[in-house]
Amino acid sequence: MAHLPIAARLHALREQMSFQSLQASIWPSADPHLSEYLPPRWQSREWLSGFAGSAGLLVVTQDWAGLWTDSRYWEQAAKDLAGSGIELMRAGEAGVPEPSAWLSAHLPAKSRVALDSRSVSMQGLAVWQEAAQDQAFEWVSGADLLGPIWTERPAAPCGKVVEHKPPHACRTRQENLERTRQSMQEQGAHWHLISALDDIAWTLNLRGEDVSYNPVFLSYLLIGPDQAHLFVDSGKLAAGVHDVLAQAGVAVQDYESLPSFLQALPASLTLLLDPARTTAWAAQLAAHLTILEQINPAQLFKSCKTEAELQHVRQAMEKDGAALCEFFAWLETHDGELTELDVDVQITAARARQAEFVSPSFGTIAAYQANGAMPHYHATEQSHARIEGDGLLLIDSGGQYLGGTTDITRVVPIGTVSAEQIRDFTLVLKGMISLSRLVFPQGIAGQQIDALARQPLWEQGLDFGHGTGHGVGYFMNVHEGPQSISWRGRIGPHSAMRAGMITSNEPGLYRPGQWGIRIENLVAAVPAMQTEYGQFLRFETLTLCPIDTRCIDASLLSQEERVWLNEYHAQVRDRLLPRVQGAARNWLEQRTQAI
Amino acid sequence: MAHLPIAARLHALREQMSFQSLQASIWPSADPHLSEYLPPRWQSREWLSGFAGSAGLLVVTQDWAGLWTDSRYWEQAAKDLAGSGIELMRAGEAGVPEPSAWLSAHLPAKSRVALDSRSVSMQGLAVWQEAAQDQAFEWVSGADLLGPIWTERPAAPCGKVVEHKPPHACRTRQENLERTRQSMQEQGAHWHLISALDDIAWTLNLRGEDVSYNPVFLSYLLIGPDQAHLFVDSGKLAAGVHDVLAQAGVAVQDYESLPSFLQALPASLTLLLDPARTTAWAAQLAAHLTILEQINPAQLFKSCKTEAELQHVRQAMEKDGAALCEFFAWLETHDGELTELDVDVQITAARARQAEFVSPSFGTIAAYQANGAMPHYHATEQSHARIEGDGLLLIDSGGQYLGGTTDITRVVPIGTVSAEQIRDFTLVLKGMISLSRLVFPQGIAGQQIDALARQPLWEQGLDFGHGTGHGVGYFMNVHEGPQSISWRGRIGPHSAMRAGMITSNEPGLYRPGQWGIRIENLVAAVPAMQTEYGQFLRFETLTLCPIDTRCIDASLLSQEERVWLNEYHAQVRDRLLPRVQGAARNWLEQRTQAI
Repeated sequence: MAHLPIAARLHALREQMSFQSLQASIWPSADPHLSEYLPPRWQSREWLSGFAGSAGLLVVTQDWAGLWTDSRYWEQAAKDLAGSGIELMRAGEAGVPEPSAWLSAHLPAKSRVALDSRSVSMQGLAVWQEAAQDQAFEWVSGADLLGPIWTERPAAPCGKVVEHKPPHACRTRQENLERTRQSMQEQGAHWHLISALDDIAWTLNLRGEDVSYNPVFLSYLLIGPDQAHLFVDSGKLAAGVHDVLAQAGVAVQDYESLPSFLQALPASLTLLLDPARTTAWAAQLAAHLTILEQINPAQLFKSCKTEAELQHVRQAMEKDGAALCEFFAWLETHDGELTELDVDVQITAARARQAEFVSPSFGTIAAYQANGAMPHYHATEQSHARIEGDGLLLIDSGGQYLGGTTDITRVVPIGTVSAEQIRDFTLVLKGMISLSRLVFPQGIAGQQIDALARQPLWEQGLDFGHGTGHGVGYFMNVHEGPQSISWRGRIGPHSAMRAGMITSNEPGLYRPGQWGIRIENLVAAVPAMQTEYGQFLRFETLTLCPIDTRCIDASLLSQEERVWLNEYHAQVRDRLLPRVQGAARNWLEQRTQAI
Repeated sequence: MAHLPIAARLHALREQMSFQSLQASIWPSADPHLSEYLPPRWQSREWLSGFAGSAGLLVVTQDWAGLWTDSRYWEQAAKDLAGSGIELMRAGEAGVPEPSAWLSAHLPAKSRVALDSRSVSMQGLAVWQEAAQDQAFEWVSGADLLGPIWTERPAAPCGKVVEHKPPHACRTRQENLERTRQSMQEQGAHWHLISALDDIAWTLNLRGEDVSYNPVFLSYLLIGPDQAHLFVDSGKLAAGVHDVLAQAGVAVQDYESLPSFLQALPASLTLLLDPARTTAWAAQLAAHLTILEQINPAQLFKSCKTEAELQHVRQAMEKDGAALCEFFAWLETHDGELTELDVDVQITAARARQAEFVSPSFGTIAAYQANGAMPHYHATEQSHARIEGDGLLLIDSGGQYLGGTTDITRVVPIGTVSAEQIRDFTLVLKGMISLSRLVFPQGIAGQQIDALARQPLWEQGLDFGHGTGHGVGYFMNVHEGPQSISWRGRIGPHSAMRAGMITSNEPGLYRPGQWGIRIENLVAAVPAMQTEYGQFLRFETLTLCPIDTRCIDASLLSQEERVWLNEYHAQVRDRLLPRVQGAARNWLEQRTQAI
């Protein structure tokens, strides 16, 4: 029933494909800026398939349709796709081909395949083309297959764009442009196009609201030796933004005028493009120029927070911690029915009472028992659990504040928890503490310290399928690069962990059908010591919130681990006490007692 | 004085370069099989520079000469090069250019640069060419610059080649050829040329003595769909080898006939070459064929030892351990003068008394105090230390046995050791135990578990500059791939740690001018458990020899570490006791007491 529209949509799509003699069409999860969170206008993969997860790829031929998604989403996708006629392709599972291999195996040579070059990165298109090169497919972009059939397609978002001002803005836009230009010059680039919305917002000290949770706005930024052009719907700009941009030598251009601008650049110039963060479409517009493929310099600059930024983050963490004290005090004393949805409402309300709060930094995950075993579970009106009986409640949430972005996961006991749950919780905690205590050489890739967070689990034949840590922005996207603590990730030239980087530390353990555990703090890499053996870094834990000791088997902790935990709780108590009153204060004092 | 010949040689070389209008010549450390240990004939870099270390690259222009070598050899190179006029280029140090960058910066465009394509891998030549492509250098191979001046150049080695027989040979050469052919077929290759001497010896169950310490022989192996050709000086083959090769479909060809053979292959064929283990010269001979660049399948097969092979290794380890008990008992009771050279003589003699011993597996490192701080130190007649007073003696040695290859490092106290030495020793030991106890998911790269072995050192701002572990052969080279436990190493498609692999576990700590510590066991990756979270491996420690507890501060060990050490010593005692008598037996019992 719920899938009747999906079948009808696929039917209409196939008609359009037929009109344009297309043997297949490919639907990534992407917008023209390759954002992680897509404005509704670009949720075409979801509209066509019914699968609501954030990562997936749909392939449609005349007689088959398949959706590839990774293990985080298999359970959800199986539900969402049931009855749609779309086959779930479990990406990464043995025997499941890559989408390109599937196409090569099932389509005749020289087939025409629709893939919108606005929905795929330069790098991504090259991978498709190379993988299927023996088949000599014709890759068709610009076939407006959805225009005639998605009649109620949402418009592009048009949120306000405002200045990110001092004291929260700790670097000037002039300074950011200057550093970028210096990097361009060192690399021999005359111009540089930025498509990634967070890199643009960071460079210009602007913040928007076009994308859920991420304070960014749809735009392109083209930086030349002396001038820069921001391509944006100028109606979005708050009063005064035009002026401050002009003062920094940034001209505002119409969002739609990028193609003509790029095409008018003289062919003798070199243009720096980030092949992972720029669409194939934008690169094609600049095909007459010499293209230098390198990471956006802004991504490197913004990943290393300044000491002034870290100071703001420490304050934001105190506010966030105080909000969490209020929330948890409420949760523990709440009487009557409670659902996962209530958790989301209450935790967001508690944050919203804090000064300088802007919005949640991602959709709250409140997941009770078996729901917690799905790392990317989201409760909905249609499907959510009551929090009752005995079990573990996992809450992963965060806030955007003018002075920083937070992201924290805690697991708390409801009723009585079992010995096995306590053991699981303690093993995960040991991994989290191991990374928290680590001293490591500057320059080592995050990928190479992941084993520390997993060792206590591995020892018992346990593991978890996601990365241990992702970069986090400064009043910016909750996921940013280039660093990552994940041994499965590829180590590239920019994977080094550097001083100032904020990264999550979030090992977990998931018992399908039973419960899930994840304990997450944000940490900042800071200098530890300089010796004759090199410069060493360590992690300063930024997040301030008790870790529920009722779920800990202290006998499994080493002396060093216990000391770390008690010192952490002492710090949480000292820094949050001045910010909480009444029940929240009592809760904080109780939950930070030493073990 | 000692450098007079070097100056004269460089002068003569420059004359030859001038005759051939060469602006520069490049001298890697390589033979035509890219061996790690070079037969004297191919030690041209050493002959020209006087630098005797195993890794280095010499660049000579008309008015400059420089030798690049890594940190392991800086101290030695500074000594060896003193007065030669050759500049020491500390590879890896900030501000020191890559050799190719140096050439680009200092030579005019279109310079003629001599680089013998027999001394550089396919991959290596590509790197040179790409790095200097803006300069459009002309790369000149085959300029016989040394012919006229190295009049006493040693001949190629001509050691005997014998069969590696059952029971020590646990797989047949037919089986090895069959597996290789299957892999060739899967990859679409008709022929496969192997240049790497260990891959050839392994495939054919032959062993030679052309290269010090490595039981290999100069040859090429060309494998076709039905036939195979071994290019070797047939005078080397022991009686009967011809016949067994013929039975396996392997024809013996003259070593020098490879070029005509390759050139005669029809152009329609695809040839599999390992770009890291084949010289550019060999690839050029096959330039008319389609070249498939992939790792030698034999390298992958031989890296995973069979259970039968591991059984032989366990026995070889018992012999090796018994020899070491005899040696250490002698060392502790020896009266009178003692030098590092004596250690080498005695330890080799002790091994030679064991059945099935063939040779040392590398040059013994016996290094007292400050000499131990040079990880690749070798005592010589001209320069070695007396072992006297108080200090630490580091001994890194190994043996080739018919049933396995050993490699072990121990550090023992001489006189009284200091608290700082004991602390250093204990920290290194903690890292070694951490890796020894690790359980890890099958498929993780060795590069990603290195941090475990270093964590206790990092915590104190300490580190060591070499890798923690290298692959080890089965009565074969003491260094083999593809695995490596080293976070600085690149992770490739074949870096996964797999069951059956033998790897060293050898963290260290070096106090320049004072002492050096390294503790090394060989370990085999073996299945630990299979759970719903995947297949996990662990390391079985193979090496059997006490770790000197007089150098350990037990208060720095965790309970788990102490248990590991005591269980290890109990096993060493149980397995070696039946093999030792008298003083060696007493020593074993004393040095394996629990702490």
